[in-house]
Amino acid sequence: MAQLTADRLLDGLSDAERGRAERVESVLPALRDAAAGADTEGRFPVEHVARLRDAGLLGLVVPQEYGGLGGTLRDLAAATFAMGTACGSTALAFFFHNTSASRGLLPLEAIRAGLFEPGEIPAVRAFAEKVLTRMADGVWLANFASESVKSAGANISISTTATKVDGGWLLNGEKSFGCATGVADYYLTTARLEGTETAAGLATFFVPRDAAGVGERPTWDALGMRATANQGITLKDVFIADDEALTVPGAFVRMLQVSRGSFVGNQLAISAVYLGAAQSAYDTALAATTGKTFADTGRPVASSPMHQVLFGDMTERLETAYLWIRRQLELETSEPPLRGKDEVFRQWRMAKGSITEACFDVAVGALKCTGTSGTANTGVIARAVRDIAMSLVMTFPAERGRLEAANIVTTGAEHALFANVAKER
Amino acid sequence: MAQLTADRLLDGLSDAERGRAERVESVLPALRDAAAGADTEGRFPVEHVARLRDAGLLGLVVPQEYGGLGGTLRDLAAATFAMGTACGSTALAFFFHNTSASRGLLPLEAIRAGLFEPGEIPAVRAFAEKVLTRMADGVWLANFASESVKSAGANISISTTATKVDGGWLLNGEKSFGCATGVADYYLTTARLEGTETAAGLATFFVPRDAAGVGERPTWDALGMRATANQGITLKDVFIADDEALTVPGAFVRMLQVSRGSFVGNQLAISAVYLGAAQSAYDTALAATTGKTFADTGRPVASSPMHQVLFGDMTERLETAYLWIRRQLELETSEPPLRGKDEVFRQWRMAKGSITEACFDVAVGALKCTGTSGTANTGVIARAVRDIAMSLVMTFPAERGRLEAANIVTTGAEHALFANVAKER
Amino acid sequence: MAQLTADRLLDGLSDAERGRAERVESVLPALRDAAAGADTEGRFPVEHVARLRDAGLLGLVVPQEYGGLGGTLRDLAAATFAMGTACGSTALAFFFHNTSASRGLLPLEAIRAGLFEPGEIPAVRAFAEKVLTRMADGVWLANFASESVKSAGANISISTTATKVDGGWLLNGEKSFGCATGVADYYLTTARLEGTETAAGLATFFVPRDAAGVGERPTWDALGMRATANQGITLKDVFIADDEALTVPGAFVRMLQVSRGSFVGNQLAISAVYLGAAQSAYDTALAATTGKTFADTGRPVASSPMHQVLFGDMTERLETAYLWIRRQLELETSEPPLRGKDEVFRQWRMAKGSITEACFDVAVGALKCTGTSGTANTGVIARAVRDIAMSLVMTFPAERGRLEAANIVTTGAEHALFANVAKER
Amino acid sequence: MAQLTADRLLDGLSDAERGRAERVESVLPALRDAAAGADTEGRFPVEHVARLRDAGLLGLVVPQEYGGLGGTLRDLAAATFAMGTACGSTALAFFFHNTSASRGLLPLEAIRAGLFEPGEIPAVRAFAEKVLTRMADGVWLANFASESVKSAGANISISTTATKVDGGWLLNGEKSFGCATGVADYYLTTARLEGTETAAGLATFFVPRDAAGVGERPTWDALGMRATANQGITLKDVFIADDEALTVPGAFVRMLQVSRGSFVGNQLAISAVYLGAAQSAYDTALAATTGKTFADTGRPVASSPMHQVLFGDMTERLETAYLWIRRQLELETSEPPLRGKDEVFRQWRMAKGSITEACFDVAVGALKCTGTSGTANTGVIARAVRDIAMSLVMTFPAERGRLEAANIVTTGAEHALFANVAKER
Repeated sequence: MAQLTADRLLDGLSDAERGRAERVESVLPALRDAAAGADTEGRFPVEHVARLRDAGLLGLVVPQEYGGLGGTLRDLAAATFAMGTACGSTALAFFFHNTSASRGLLPLEAIRAGLFEPGEIPAVRAFAEKVLTRMADGVWLANFASESVKSAGANISISTTATKVDGGWLLNGEKSFGCATGVADYYLTTARLEGTETAAGLATFFVPRDAAGVGERPTWDALGMRATANQGITLKDVFIADDEALTVPGAFVRMLQVSRGSFVGNQLAISAVYLGAAQSAYDTALAATTGKTFADTGRPVASSPMHQVLFGDMTERLETAYLWIRRQLELETSEPPLRGKDEVFRQWRMAKGSITEACFDVAVGALKCTGTSGTANTGVIARAVRDIAMSLVMTFPAERGRLEAANIVTTGAEHALFANVAKER
Repeated sequence: MAQLTADRLLDGLSDAERGRAERVESVLPALRDAAAGADTEGRFPVEHVARLRDAGLLGLVVPQEYGGLGGTLRDLAAATFAMGTACGSTALAFFFHNTSASRGLLPLEAIRAGLFEPGEIPAVRAFAEKVLTRMADGVWLANFASESVKSAGANISISTTATKVDGGWLLNGEKSFGCATGVADYYLTTARLEGTETAAGLATFFVPRDAAGVGERPTWDALGMRATANQGITLKDVFIADDEALTVPGAFVRMLQVSRGSFVGNQLAISAVYLGAAQSAYDTALAATTGKTFADTGRPVASSPMHQVLFGDMTERLETAYLWIRRQLELETSEPPLRGKDEVFRQWRMAKGSITEACFDVAVGALKCTGTSGTANTGVIARAVRDIAMSLVMTFPAERGRLEAANIVTTGAEHALFANVAKER
Repeated sequence: MAQLTADRLLDGLSDAERGRAERVESVLPALRDAAAGADTEGRFPVEHVARLRDAGLLGLVVPQEYGGLGGTLRDLAAATFAMGTACGSTALAFFFHNTSASRGLLPLEAIRAGLFEPGEIPAVRAFAEKVLTRMADGVWLANFASESVKSAGANISISTTATKVDGGWLLNGEKSFGCATGVADYYLTTARLEGTETAAGLATFFVPRDAAGVGERPTWDALGMRATANQGITLKDVFIADDEALTVPGAFVRMLQVSRGSFVGNQLAISAVYLGAAQSAYDTALAATTGKTFADTGRPVASSPMHQVLFGDMTERLETAYLWIRRQLELETSEPPLRGKDEVFRQWRMAKGSITEACFDVAVGALKCTGTSGTANTGVIARAVRDIAMSLVMTFPAERGRLEAANIVTTGAEHALFANVAKER
Repeated sequence: MAQLTADRLLDGLSDAERGRAERVESVLPALRDAAAGADTEGRFPVEHVARLRDAGLLGLVVPQEYGGLGGTLRDLAAATFAMGTACGSTALAFFFHNTSASRGLLPLEAIRAGLFEPGEIPAVRAFAEKVLTRMADGVWLANFASESVKSAGANISISTTATKVDGGWLLNGEKSFGCATGVADYYLTTARLEGTETAAGLATFFVPRDAAGVGERPTWDALGMRATANQGITLKDVFIADDEALTVPGAFVRMLQVSRGSFVGNQLAISAVYLGAAQSAYDTALAATTGKTFADTGRPVASSPMHQVLFGDMTERLETAYLWIRRQLELETSEPPLRGKDEVFRQWRMAKGSITEACFDVAVGALKCTGTSGTANTGVIARAVRDIAMSLVMTFPAERGRLEAANIVTTGAEHALFANVAKER
């Protein structure tokens, strides 16, 4: 049985999981080949869209009954991890596409959990199924993590607004920190319904890439994850028809209620991207220093006392990242649940930072190990340093996650995840 | 279903495991009550021996066919962890008793694995069964981790020597770093057969506590783990009959070959002792600071920005320790094995240090949280600082473990665990 | 020129400083000899009082015009550092005696700075000179750092109250965290004048050790610094005559205004105690591991890769502590001042924690270096671990210091040092 | 008196130092303006050469008797620090030019110290004065830190070879890790004289930029310090006349003997470059987060608990870097020397790593503080992350420095700085 990249992250892949992981494995060489160039140009390699679609991977986590591959969060994490060893940017963009599936899966789960009234169910189900079948059909669905306004009291603030008009809605606002801008077929967009002030007023819209009024924000020349097309979009009086939206009041909140994990419940698959990049930097440093010898002693460079210290530290840090991510995956996928949702949530607040800090340490250690040669800007190691540096910032830094865990532990309180920010405030 | 201390460490206890954990739980109050006094006096609470025997716990990991409770490494770790929350010293002494079981279990396993010749098997089996049935019958078996000679090339050096005499052997040497000196019924003692120079010459002996020639080394007034009676023994021409010894050449080495983990394969249960102590310090700090309020604001002390930082860090560190120990347990108990023995071994070299460093950080954090009150020398927190400080030293520090992992990673080599140190060298 | 312990801390000792340092050096052997026993018994070695008095050291920082040795903060830091290498407890108690001098020096400085009205000056001067001449005459003056009430808004809260009666004052309250309880000749005691609610109402009193109404709190069996007699006192209707008190309104606040550093301006000399202990642990570990050899290779234990890592880390950490303390000393003693008082203050909030964390790391590293032998509870290394652990807690932990520095940097605000806590609140 | 950037690093600038620092200050705006563009293009801004020459700065550390400004290591560190706040690349290149002065100053110092025979002195003096007067005249002298061969036993290995021919020497070899390739007027080049095998055979040559046989290595597209033109040179039968070389046997070794510090004695001024970059990242993060407010509370972003933790940590780390560099400067410039050369050397082995690790932490902290906006690739913060990442690798990582310090402490040995690597080996 061939060793797959996924085997480094997951124990005991089932046959079905192995089959899906092989599809991922098949695209890695192409991703790896394009990675340095895409990084240099800061360009999302659009040719990967067809490649992933052809491999069936756009429906990776869509249930088979909707035409997908039936993968779970385990598959998604294994996929973003494996892709992360080849090209962090593509892995991240692929994650954002897949997270769109939660907008189909969670509403269906909430219906099953009895959280919707009978009268609401048809609209909710229709929207949910549209999300899933489109993904399974090979449609790329971008979605966006944040907007530019910052709140002290919430992780994410939504000020993009939907105004009711005849037959649909007009969207106005700006979305940042997503991926595949200008590449995705649709932008799955969260907005607040005009006149509402709480999270109950949040709604979701399919925004076609080329719809009138959709623009792109200026290209973001970033430190890392440069090939994700993450500049985000502007929306100016963009009309979206009623049946391309989920505007049932409170749908968003009820969706979050059934999520197993933090937020929409698959954030750990982002961390897997960075773990893949760290593993790749580690492997590169190990190969470079065991393959090169000192001129005077003929012994491998890796045998020097300094390298032994560095490899000891890197190996421990890398394993620490694996431990956190495997535990989170276990907590979010086990049936029956091993621990209560509050502990799963609290664990994630720590895990996110612990994983990314460990991954960053590994990449920096790899840089130290390889000296000048590791500093090649688009080489695997320097790229890992830059790509993983982005994770220190993204969503929340480790320091914030630990403070939130402390707050939960000492008071039982949780931090509001979403705020509905009325513009007039 | 009542919450057990063991549930904090292990997920999914089986009914049988739960039953055994309940026996452990039943002795915790007595252990907790005696802990501070035993620490102050630096005295092993001998009354615990009867208590543990009465609860059936001396046979915790002995298979039911030999009269034991049939527990596995999971049970042992759960037990030492739970006892560690009450009295680290007792938990540690209990661990050392249980690790004696490996001298019964591993030889039997090695026989099954075909590692012994037919002619050797009866002697090996007889000795192995004697170890197990004695434990199940409530006999306390001490054993010793080290001797005072240090080698650069091995973790443990054996210079205690057994000389053949009519009907048995004469033992001479000194043993340190065990527990229950003067308390255990037998000291299970490793010695080198005179005339041998390799690990193949290592043999095991039942040394009765009160045998002629057995002495105690001076009491060790230690920083922590003060109530373990760990001073060790001296052996001067101690006669042990042939049938109280396992002297088949190479038995020791073959025994190690079938061990799933590091050394005799249950070292992680020592780490569980320290994790229990850390958890206890954490709980004590949390209770103290959430239960006490500031005079001026009336808010809990735990709500101060400093306490939030400390609890964030402590919570993350505590969880890190859990992650390492749970993973090691999984690696050493899964059927079929998740990973190769070399990876299990390498993982342990890192895990040991990562767990104890994290536990120490938690105890020091608890000290900072609680200010002057936490500095009470025999209180839970200061005792945890002292007890866990011992783990930084015991067996090998984290720095050594990481260097060994680095060596394995960069060369594939392993560190010799045992050296047979001939005195004349 | 003989090498003095003080030379390790300070560069360029002047001849006068060298003379004073030689007095300190002369008492070190006696301090070192008594240290382990005093630690075990948890008893302040009262015989040291006469020893230090005979060496003239009770007036170390008293100006020569008042009969003292004329030392500055440099001398005090050098003294507590040197004593810290021998006996941390004695060094700490000696520090607390010397800090009493600030109650003489700062009022005189405030008079010179024009902070007192002509009518107030005689009383202020008389009290100040009494403090200084008594110290120079060999009187031991204890003083206390804190009380048991905690405030979120201030570092230290004073609820001990002085009530005016005919010819003097009646003191009621409790004082903790000082030294030399039951040993000092006088307790220099801060109390709030009844009816006041701000720091302006804080006053200072000479409380004779054996005055009626003075009691001792229960002995504190502490983790470390066990030989300081730091249990503190209780005051029940203790009568203090008017001329044994400084009750000019606002005297305390004006005194703090002229302090060069944090609080009363010589806190760094406490840190020097811990640095001395850390240096001593380091030296002990170095001697032990360079003097002992491996049985198999004959090379020093210190040459092992693990020891090299540990010594590299310890050496760096030890030097880090020296850097912080030397800089603070420079900032608090340079003429003209190198930096503004706000920067000196901010620097101290960081320095205190950075020094003690580094010292603790060194002691823990020494423990790891020396293995079992270092765990002897009253040996230099384990004692250093325990003594320095106290510094992690004392006054404020590193985490709090850094948060205060952050607050200063981001807002310019400072944390109120003293709160006058009215009991009725 | 205007505040200069240099005042942040140095206390008590003399008037002469202040005058030189003002010259540096005058060029900072131009450096700052060109920094982002130069980084993007990976191009040394050649226009800075004239700018620095016009400001007299090419002779900054050349004694006035040779036409220079008479600055010392203090001036050099202040200059590279100040330039580092504006453009790290230019500061680094400027450092490398200035370090050439040691090839003039140290030989003259060695002559004064009686290390040269009378017959050798004229040649040594002539070369030394040529170095200094050329610098003072505005000639840019590049020099190179390393070659590509790595030795286990030495920090730097020289295999570039000089072969005697009529009237001069033929140079062959390759030089890397310098700056100003293709920009400098001369490359000051170290080579081994053919037939020698020890450091005594190392010699120094003025290689004109455009001499026949001089080539450039391929441009190095690096992670950071991208605008330094550090690709290095190739030398193929380059003829250098006798009077453009210092080939007195042992000159190099004797020069090192009189150096106050490590190697040629001004390495700390490289660290000052990175400290400047860290200070700039810190200032940028502080301005960004105190100037921006939360939408919901109106409070500055910097006031969030997470930002307080980050600023506390960053402030402490930044100050730690200052402490190490100021101490090293003091050790290398004080008259009379405060400590022996061995301690100065050992200190530098630690200081180098401690400074760069601290600077890197500050830059990464600034990135976390500023979120997405800080990730702009050529912005001050992301550039600082990339530029400072180079320092983790350059010369030696912190881990190596600490191991060397450990080796010195435990054995007294020092690491050979230079090896003369004969090609035939």
